[in-house]
Amino acid sequence: MSTDHWYSSKLRDIPHPECIHLLQSQQVGRIAFEDDSGPDVLPINYAMDGEDILISTSAYGVVARAATNSRVAFEVDSLDDYTESGWSVVVRGRATHESPLIPPSGEHPHPWADGTRSYHLRIVADVVRGRRLIPA
Amino acid sequence: MSTDHWYSSKLRDIPHPECIHLLQSQQVGRIAFEDDSGPDVLPINYAMDGEDILISTSAYGVVARAATNSRVAFEVDSLDDYTESGWSVVVRGRATHESPLIPPSGEHPHPWADGTRSYHLRIVADVVRGRRLIPA
Repeated sequence: MSTDHWYSSKLRDIPHPECIHLLQSQQVGRIAFEDDSGPDVLPINYAMDGEDILISTSAYGVVARAATNSRVAFEVDSLDDYTESGWSVVVRGRATHESPLIPPSGEHPHPWADGTRSYHLRIVADVVRGRRLIPA
Repeated sequence: MSTDHWYSSKLRDIPHPECIHLLQSQQVGRIAFEDDSGPDVLPINYAMDGEDILISTSAYGVVARAATNSRVAFEVDSLDDYTESGWSVVVRGRATHESPLIPPSGEHPHPWADGTRSYHLRIVADVVRGRRLIPA
Protein backbone atom coordinates (compact mmCIF):
# COMPACT_ATOMS: atom_id res chain seq x y z
CA MET A 1 0.00 0.00 0.00
CA SER A 2 1.58 3.26 -1.07
CA THR A 3 1.12 6.41 0.96
CA ASP A 4 -0.58 7.87 -2.13
CA HIS A 5 -3.50 5.52 -1.59
CA TRP A 6 -4.05 4.92 2.11
CA TYR A 7 -7.74 4.65 1.43
CA SER A 8 -7.85 3.63 -2.21
CA SER A 9 -11.53 3.28 -2.74
CA LYS A 10 -13.78 0.89 -4.61
CA LEU A 11 -16.83 1.96 -6.56
CA ARG A 12 -20.12 0.14 -5.97
CA ASP A 13 -23.50 0.79 -7.54
CA ILE A 14 -26.27 1.72 -5.10
CA PRO A 15 -29.62 -0.08 -5.57
CA HIS A 16 -32.58 2.10 -6.57
CA PRO A 17 -34.47 2.01 -3.23
CA GLU A 18 -31.34 3.11 -1.39
CA CYS A 19 -30.82 5.92 -3.94
CA ILE A 20 -34.30 7.24 -3.11
CA HIS A 21 -33.62 6.92 0.61
CA LEU A 22 -30.37 8.86 0.23
CA LEU A 23 -32.14 11.57 -1.81
CA GLN A 24 -34.64 11.87 1.05
CA SER A 25 -31.81 12.27 3.56
CA GLN A 26 -30.39 15.54 2.23
CA GLN A 27 -31.48 19.17 2.06
CA VAL A 28 -29.21 20.52 -0.67
CA GLY A 29 -28.35 19.16 -4.09
CA ARG A 30 -26.81 20.59 -7.25
CA ILE A 31 -28.91 21.15 -10.33
CA ALA A 32 -27.20 21.00 -13.73
CA PHE A 33 -28.90 22.57 -16.71
CA GLU A 34 -27.99 24.22 -19.95
CA ASP A 35 -28.36 27.82 -21.02
CA ASP A 36 -27.12 29.63 -24.13
CA SER A 37 -23.54 29.45 -22.81
CA GLY A 38 -23.53 25.70 -22.18
CA PRO A 39 -23.82 23.61 -19.02
CA ASP A 40 -24.22 25.33 -15.68
CA VAL A 41 -24.60 23.92 -12.16
CA LEU A 42 -25.53 25.38 -8.79
CA PRO A 43 -26.51 24.23 -5.31
CA ILE A 44 -30.18 24.42 -4.38
CA ASN A 45 -32.49 23.27 -1.60
CA TYR A 46 -35.00 20.61 -2.51
CA ALA A 47 -37.67 18.30 -1.17
CA MET A 48 -38.78 14.90 -2.37
CA ASP A 49 -42.34 14.13 -3.42
CA GLY A 50 -42.27 10.38 -3.81
CA GLU A 51 -39.44 9.92 -6.29
CA ASP A 52 -39.79 13.41 -7.78
CA ILE A 53 -37.58 16.32 -6.80
CA LEU A 54 -39.21 19.65 -5.95
CA ILE A 55 -37.29 22.92 -5.97
CA SER A 56 -38.41 26.49 -5.33
CA THR A 57 -36.59 29.34 -6.98
CA SER A 58 -37.03 32.90 -8.19
CA ALA A 59 -39.38 33.27 -11.15
CA TYR A 60 -36.84 35.65 -12.71
CA GLY A 61 -33.68 33.66 -12.09
CA VAL A 62 -31.45 31.54 -14.26
CA VAL A 63 -32.87 28.22 -13.05
CA ALA A 64 -36.47 29.12 -13.86
CA ARG A 65 -35.42 30.47 -17.26
CA ALA A 66 -33.08 27.66 -18.29
CA ALA A 67 -34.52 24.57 -16.61
CA THR A 68 -38.29 24.89 -17.17
CA ASN A 69 -39.48 22.30 -19.69
CA SER A 70 -35.88 21.20 -20.19
CA ARG A 71 -33.78 18.24 -19.26
CA VAL A 72 -31.73 18.63 -16.09
CA ALA A 73 -29.50 16.56 -13.84
CA PHE A 74 -29.59 16.73 -10.06
CA GLU A 75 -26.86 15.47 -7.76
CA VAL A 76 -26.60 14.87 -4.01
CA ASP A 77 -23.61 13.44 -2.21
CA SER A 78 -21.87 12.97 1.08
CA LEU A 79 -18.09 12.75 0.89
CA ASP A 80 -15.34 12.38 3.45
CA ASP A 81 -11.93 13.84 2.59
CA TYR A 82 -10.19 11.89 5.34
CA THR A 83 -11.24 8.39 4.32
CA GLU A 84 -11.57 9.44 0.66
CA SER A 85 -14.93 7.77 0.48
CA GLY A 86 -18.62 8.58 0.33
CA TRP A 87 -21.60 8.32 -1.96
CA SER A 88 -23.41 10.25 -4.65
CA VAL A 89 -26.81 9.93 -6.29
CA VAL A 90 -27.58 11.51 -9.65
CA VAL A 91 -31.04 11.98 -11.12
CA ARG A 92 -31.58 12.83 -14.78
CA GLY A 93 -34.96 13.92 -16.02
CA ARG A 94 -37.21 16.73 -17.13
CA ALA A 95 -38.11 19.81 -15.09
CA THR A 96 -41.60 21.26 -15.37
CA HIS A 97 -43.21 24.29 -13.77
CA GLU A 98 -45.52 23.33 -10.89
CA SER A 99 -48.12 25.91 -9.92
CA PRO A 100 -49.33 25.98 -7.26
CA LEU A 101 -46.95 23.71 -5.37
CA ILE A 102 -49.27 21.16 -3.81
CA PRO A 103 -47.36 17.92 -3.53
CA PRO A 104 -49.72 15.07 -2.76
CA SER A 105 -47.13 13.85 -0.28
CA GLY A 106 -43.71 14.84 0.93
CA GLU A 107 -42.61 18.23 2.09
CA HIS A 108 -42.09 21.58 0.47
CA PRO A 109 -38.56 22.72 -0.26
CA HIS A 110 -37.17 25.03 2.43
CA PRO A 111 -34.79 27.47 0.75
CA TRP A 112 -31.99 28.54 3.06
CA ALA A 113 -31.45 31.82 1.26
CA ASP A 114 -33.67 34.84 1.80
CA GLY A 115 -35.83 36.16 -0.98
CA THR A 116 -39.00 35.27 -2.82
CA ARG A 117 -38.73 31.78 -4.25
CA SER A 118 -42.24 31.21 -5.44
CA TYR A 119 -41.46 29.49 -8.71
CA HIS A 120 -41.66 25.75 -8.25
CA LEU A 121 -40.14 23.09 -10.45
CA ARG A 122 -40.75 19.36 -10.39
CA ILE A 123 -38.04 17.06 -11.72
CA VAL A 124 -39.37 13.71 -12.86
CA ALA A 125 -36.53 11.22 -13.06
CA ASP A 126 -36.02 8.85 -15.94
CA VAL A 127 -32.56 7.86 -14.72
CA VAL A 128 -31.48 7.45 -11.09
CA ARG A 129 -27.99 6.19 -10.43
CA GLY A 130 -25.98 5.96 -7.25
CA ARG A 131 -22.34 5.15 -6.60
CA ARG A 132 -20.65 4.43 -3.33
CA LEU A 133 -16.91 4.83 -2.81
CA ILE A 134 -15.91 2.23 -0.23
CA PRO A 135 -12.51 2.50 1.45
CA ALA A 136 -10.50 -0.56 0.46
CA MET B 1 -38.48 35.11 13.56
CA SER B 2 -40.48 32.05 12.61
CA THR B 3 -39.28 28.57 13.43
CA ASP B 4 -39.21 27.97 9.68
CA HIS B 5 -36.26 30.35 9.36
CA TRP B 6 -34.06 30.18 12.42
CA TYR B 7 -31.06 30.78 10.22
CA SER B 8 -32.55 32.56 7.25
CA SER B 9 -29.47 33.24 5.20
CA LYS B 10 -28.21 36.11 3.08
CA LEU B 11 -26.45 35.63 -0.23
CA ARG B 12 -23.19 37.46 -0.84
CA ASP B 13 -20.94 37.35 -3.90
CA ILE B 14 -17.41 36.07 -3.27
CA PRO B 15 -14.56 38.10 -4.83
CA HIS B 16 -12.51 36.36 -7.53
CA PRO B 17 -9.29 35.82 -5.50
CA GLU B 18 -11.29 34.18 -2.72
CA CYS B 19 -13.07 31.97 -5.28
CA ILE B 20 -9.67 30.69 -6.46
CA HIS B 21 -8.56 30.15 -2.87
CA LEU B 22 -11.72 28.16 -2.13
CA LEU B 23 -11.22 26.08 -5.29
CA GLN B 24 -7.70 25.30 -4.05
CA SER B 25 -9.09 24.21 -0.66
CA GLN B 26 -11.14 21.24 -1.87
CA GLN B 27 -10.44 17.78 -3.29
CA VAL B 28 -13.78 16.96 -4.90
CA GLY B 29 -16.05 18.98 -7.16
CA ARG B 30 -18.93 18.17 -9.48
CA ILE B 31 -18.52 18.41 -13.22
CA ALA B 32 -21.59 19.22 -15.32
CA PHE B 33 -21.54 18.43 -19.01
CA GLU B 34 -23.93 17.49 -21.74
CA ASP B 35 -24.29 14.23 -23.61
CA ASP B 36 -26.91 13.08 -26.11
CA SER B 37 -29.47 12.79 -23.29
CA GLY B 38 -28.97 16.31 -21.94
CA PRO B 39 -27.16 17.65 -18.88
CA ASP B 40 -25.36 15.27 -16.57
CA VAL B 41 -23.34 15.89 -13.41
CA LEU B 42 -21.04 13.79 -11.26
CA PRO B 43 -18.50 14.20 -8.47
CA ILE B 44 -14.84 14.00 -9.39
CA ASN B 45 -11.44 14.63 -7.82
CA TYR B 46 -9.50 17.57 -9.17
CA ALA B 47 -6.39 19.66 -8.75
CA MET B 48 -5.78 23.30 -9.55
CA ASP B 49 -3.06 24.49 -11.91
CA GLY B 50 -3.12 28.21 -11.40
CA GLU B 51 -6.74 29.05 -12.14
CA ASP B 52 -7.30 25.99 -14.34
CA ILE B 53 -8.95 22.81 -13.12
CA LEU B 54 -7.29 19.46 -13.87
CA ILE B 55 -9.18 16.20 -13.71
CA SER B 56 -8.10 12.64 -14.45
CA THR B 57 -10.62 10.13 -15.67
CA SER B 58 -10.97 6.95 -17.68
CA ALA B 59 -10.28 7.35 -21.39
CA TYR B 60 -13.37 5.23 -22.06
CA GLY B 61 -15.78 6.87 -19.63
CA VAL B 62 -18.64 9.29 -20.03
CA VAL B 63 -16.65 12.35 -18.92
CA ALA B 64 -13.87 11.83 -21.47
CA ARG B 65 -16.44 11.20 -24.19
CA ALA B 66 -18.84 14.05 -23.42
CA ALA B 67 -16.62 16.75 -21.95
CA THR B 68 -13.57 16.77 -24.23
CA ASN B 69 -13.52 19.92 -26.38
CA SER B 70 -16.88 20.90 -24.93
CA ARG B 71 -18.16 23.48 -22.51
CA VAL B 72 -18.53 22.28 -18.93
CA ALA B 73 -19.38 23.69 -15.52
CA PHE B 74 -17.56 22.71 -12.34
CA GLU B 75 -18.85 23.28 -8.82
CA VAL B 76 -17.33 23.04 -5.35
CA ASP B 77 -19.08 23.88 -2.11
CA SER B 78 -19.08 23.52 1.64
CA LEU B 79 -22.50 23.59 3.24
CA ASP B 80 -23.75 23.25 6.81
CA ASP B 81 -27.24 21.82 7.30
CA TYR B 82 -27.43 23.03 10.89
CA THR B 83 -26.78 26.73 10.29
CA GLU B 84 -28.22 26.52 6.77
CA SER B 85 -25.22 28.36 5.42
CA GLY B 86 -22.08 27.78 3.43
CA TRP B 87 -20.46 28.70 0.13
CA SER B 88 -20.20 27.51 -3.42
CA VAL B 89 -17.92 28.35 -6.33
CA VAL B 90 -18.87 27.59 -9.93
CA VAL B 91 -16.51 27.65 -12.89
CA ARG B 92 -17.75 27.63 -16.45
CA GLY B 93 -15.38 27.03 -19.32
CA ARG B 94 -14.06 24.65 -21.93
CA ALA B 95 -12.49 21.26 -21.26
CA THR B 96 -9.61 20.09 -23.42
CA HIS B 97 -7.60 16.89 -23.45
CA GLU B 98 -4.19 17.32 -21.83
CA SER B 99 -1.56 14.74 -22.76
CA PRO B 100 0.73 14.18 -21.03
CA LEU B 101 -0.38 15.84 -17.81
CA ILE B 102 2.51 18.12 -16.95
CA PRO B 103 1.10 21.09 -15.12
CA PRO B 104 3.71 23.85 -14.92
CA SER B 105 2.59 24.35 -11.34
CA GLY B 106 0.05 22.90 -8.96
CA GLU B 107 -0.53 19.28 -8.20
CA HIS B 108 -1.90 16.35 -10.06
CA PRO B 109 -5.44 15.20 -9.33
CA HIS B 110 -5.53 12.30 -6.88
CA PRO B 111 -8.57 10.17 -7.77
CA TRP B 112 -10.03 8.46 -4.73
CA ALA B 113 -11.50 5.63 -6.77
CA ASP B 114 -9.45 2.70 -7.98
CA GLY B 115 -8.92 2.13 -11.66
CA THR B 116 -6.91 3.56 -14.51
CA ARG B 117 -7.59 7.25 -14.84
CA SER B 118 -4.99 8.26 -17.35
CA TYR B 119 -7.11 10.61 -19.42
CA HIS B 120 -6.52 14.17 -18.29
CA LEU B 121 -8.74 17.16 -18.91
CA ARG B 122 -7.96 20.81 -18.32
CA ILE B 123 -10.85 23.19 -17.73
CA VAL B 124 -10.00 26.79 -18.58
CA ALA B 125 -12.48 29.11 -16.92
CA ASP B 126 -14.14 32.01 -18.63
CA VAL B 127 -16.60 32.52 -15.78
CA VAL B 128 -15.86 32.05 -12.07
CA ARG B 129 -18.59 32.96 -9.61
CA GLY B 130 -18.89 32.37 -5.89
CA ARG B 131 -21.78 32.83 -3.50
CA ARG B 132 -21.71 32.72 0.26
CA LEU B 133 -24.82 32.04 2.33
CA ILE B 134 -24.36 33.94 5.57
CA PRO B 135 -26.61 33.13 8.54
CA ALA B 136 -28.69 36.22 9.29
